[in-house]
Amino acid sequence: IAKRLEKFKTTIFTQMSNLAIKHGAINLGQGFPNFDGPEFVKEAAIQAIKNGKNQYARGYGVPDFNSAIAERFKKDTGLVADPEKEITVTSGCTEAIAATILGLINPGDEVILFAPFYDSYEATLSMAGAKITGITLRPPDFSVPIEELKSKISKNTRAIMINTPHNPTGKMFTREELSTIASLCIENDVLVFSDEVYDKLAFEQDHISMASLPGMWERTVTMNSLGKTFSLTGWKIGWAIAPPHLTWGVRQAHAFLTFATSTPMQWAAATALRAPDSYYEELKRDYMAKKAILVEGLKAVGFKVFPSSGTYFVVVDHTPFGRANNDIEFCEYLIKEVGVVAIPTSVFYLNPEEGKNLVRFTFCKDEGTLRAAVERMKQKL
Amino acid sequence: IAKRLEKFKTTIFTQMSNLAIKHGAINLGQGFPNFDGPEFVKEAAIQAIKNGKNQYARGYGVPDFNSAIAERFKKDTGLVADPEKEITVTSGCTEAIAATILGLINPGDEVILFAPFYDSYEATLSMAGAKITGITLRPPDFSVPIEELKSKISKNTRAIMINTPHNPTGKMFTREELSTIASLCIENDVLVFSDEVYDKLAFEQDHISMASLPGMWERTVTMNSLGKTFSLTGWKIGWAIAPPHLTWGVRQAHAFLTFATSTPMQWAAATALRAPDSYYEELKRDYMAKKAILVEGLKAVGFKVFPSSGTYFVVVDHTPFGRANNDIEFCEYLIKEVGVVAIPTSVFYLNPEEGKNLVRFTFCKDEGTLRAAVERMKQKL
Ligand SMILES: CSCCC(=O)C(=O)O
Ligand SMILES: CSCCC(=O)C(=O)O
Repeated sequence: IAKRLEKFKTTIFTQMSNLAIKHGAINLGQGFPNFDGPEFVKEAAIQAIKNGKNQYARGYGVPDFNSAIAERFKKDTGLVADPEKEITVTSGCTEAIAATILGLINPGDEVILFAPFYDSYEATLSMAGAKITGITLRPPDFSVPIEELKSKISKNTRAIMINTPHNPTGKMFTREELSTIASLCIENDVLVFSDEVYDKLAFEQDHISMASLPGMWERTVTMNSLGKTFSLTGWKIGWAIAPPHLTWGVRQAHAFLTFATSTPMQWAAATALRAPDSYYEELKRDYMAKKAILVEGLKAVGFKVFPSSGTYFVVVDHTPFGRANNDIEFCEYLIKEVGVVAIPTSVFYLNPEEGKNLVRFTFCKDEGTLRAAVERMKQKL
Repeated sequence: IAKRLEKFKTTIFTQMSNLAIKHGAINLGQGFPNFDGPEFVKEAAIQAIKNGKNQYARGYGVPDFNSAIAERFKKDTGLVADPEKEITVTSGCTEAIAATILGLINPGDEVILFAPFYDSYEATLSMAGAKITGITLRPPDFSVPIEELKSKISKNTRAIMINTPHNPTGKMFTREELSTIASLCIENDVLVFSDEVYDKLAFEQDHISMASLPGMWERTVTMNSLGKTFSLTGWKIGWAIAPPHLTWGVRQAHAFLTFATSTPMQWAAATALRAPDSYYEELKRDYMAKKAILVEGLKAVGFKVFPSSGTYFVVVDHTPFGRANNDIEFCEYLIKEVGVVAIPTSVFYLNPEEGKNLVRFTFCKDEGTLRAAVERMKQKL
């Protein structure tokens, strides 16, 4: 294995989903729904396949889908992105992240990551040879330590990765935090790579796109995907929106990482993004109900539950139970003795120690499953 | 844009396919069929979507598809690959190439490329920081210059990229050539990354997988895809087969480049790979008929046509017409004045000069289209 990947283990999602299957445990680990995506989107994919939309798409996207992304982005943020010059379709947001980082970051560039973070950020930064600077968001509210950020940002900083709503904590960056980050970026000529895949799962305040802040459009790559919003995580359709000078880097990396993304799925995704507002409202309502079941359940079980205002994740402190020395041991106990899968968070920190008390549960499951998981924990923890 | 990608232009496939649309030219450029994939495979995808196979696949592949790949590989090569430990599903062969190179090549490693080559090889090697050594295959037969290879392979060589049947030339590496390369690799402890996406389009001799040569299994990554064999280039399903110590690198890069590949398409791909032999025989028969039409046509037009024994490409020398100073100018003339798209080959060489007389045509089009293209060239060249 190449040195750039040496330090990384099998992704925790694969590990935990495999264990879930092996032990017949209820999987509240990896973030995929146990219910299906909407019929109208599935039907659009079926029609695309039937109608012969089965050959290579244009490298940066099926034109109609690029347009649908621009329309959606306009509705969500008020920003006008040129579908031909500023939008790149990728094979999931994970590829958008890889293409952005490999396309724009040089060896030695400093990049700031807020920990905990989705594990691909660190791995792709390592592939790019970046120098990673971590800033930890700490419970209970996971707010941005502004003074620390100020002290760590410098003329050598090339980019900051943002993820709002934030996986795994459910934190949403406030307008104040985003504004401060924006000023620092403008002052120090820093880019923002903004992963917004949970933007439609914002329960308590409106989602704010970094690109919509004054002066930020020209220095932001906004990444998103179909999977979370349409409960079709297995379709692997994502995109990156950025001004032309940044899009060029993203597209060139994308051209050589995957060349193009599934054509029929892009046609279906175009239909999806044009869903009426009612679709998005209902999605949010459904998830708020699921969240209430899981959060109340976890509290009743005895966990210390940290507030989550977005995403379909919630983070808890497992130490009240005294079952384990750290998050990984706790998750093993939970799988083997209780029959429930959660995700240990230490893998999302540069210093694993910082995550040792915290584990993540997802509520992207039907209500019966959520109740059954809570019941198991009530009885066996 | 990051330095690793600075020197690369928009891929020639995107450029030429865009020009084809703009000028209403007949597209014999990029290698995608203008006919549809088989009904039974499309139907399998539709059923997978309907049956809720729409969430994240296991990172390295849907188990049944990994098995189908192993079965097919066994039939084709006699080799037994463990579906769980030696096969990784990727988003097209382009991703298999990127994951193999980024997963196994360190900065400064020497890698040998045979020119002309599919452009992603050079770009991903550049992303990995490899030192590229080129060896040119020259017309008329594009045979491997063994003495030159011997002189360029050394203790610093980490890998050789092979592509057989070979895009763009249609050359198939002979058993002798492969054996010589194999001995050199064993002697110098060199890996082979073998792109075999055109293995089912071998018209004059049987395809030989490098991994099947004595001593080569443990040092070869064999890459393949669904697109060419099943006329579904837009589905972007590929895979890499390699012993566990190499698979580990491929999988780790894959995990962070795309994480997983489209779930419903993998279910359909499993059905595809289990097609009866008759499917493959018919495919080959069809392509031989198409090839005859194009090759005879190009000869009648007045091109010097080089023999192609595999792939759906054929390379010609355009200089008899005296229309242009190089391949790029010739292709521009062909698009604008004649209404036919071909691919200039100079972009597939480290030294573009070497490709300036050669252009590539594809015959993965229906017979009417091939005849119409020939007709245009007869009248206007
Ligand atoms: C590949 S898993 C992607 C992110 C996610 O779903 C998770 O964090 O569980
Ligand atoms: C992305 S194009 C892949 C290869 C091919 O089809 C071609 O060489 O035309």
